[in-house]
Amino acid sequence: MTVLGLIAGALTTLSFLPQVVRTMRTRSARDLSWTWIVMMTAGITAWCVYGMLRVDVPVIVANGITFVLVMSLAVLKARHERVVSTAS
Amino acid sequence: MTVLGLIAGALTTLSFLPQVVRTMRTRSARDLSWTWIVMMTAGITAWCVYGMLRVDVPVIVANGITFVLVMSLAVLKARHERVVSTAS
Repeated sequence: MTVLGLIAGALTTLSFLPQVVRTMRTRSARDLSWTWIVMMTAGITAWCVYGMLRVDVPVIVANGITFVLVMSLAVLKARHERVVSTAS
Repeated sequence: MTVLGLIAGALTTLSFLPQVVRTMRTRSARDLSWTWIVMMTAGITAWCVYGMLRVDVPVIVANGITFVLVMSLAVLKARHERVVSTAS
């Protein structure tokens, strides 16, 4: 059952990697919702704090990686929107 | 600490709602990665099975809601891409 949990965690965490790669490649993040990014970042931060309080390493690691990936999406979206705004 | 976990779960689960609303409103999901959607769906399904095996209701509920929201994104993306493909 632990293996299933690890597979589940790896899938939901690493799923953000192809999204970051796509956003870097297409240089477009218009279809990503800022509300989604902000809520997701807040939620992942809360999960990290929760993991630290419980000294739960898998929760800290999984959410730490997801945090980095979602923050990358936020930076890419902010950068692309500034470029579009400057160009128009 | 349980309250923090509930807040974290509510945030990461419900964060997908504004993304679904945005995709419905803009009728565009081009910037969403299919690989992300597929990996996320597989991961959430694994989390649901894990929750069922452990009889962990919060895990089942949170991932059940996320599953419905991510599947909505998949349906919207598939529909919009068919419309774009037919139009061009």
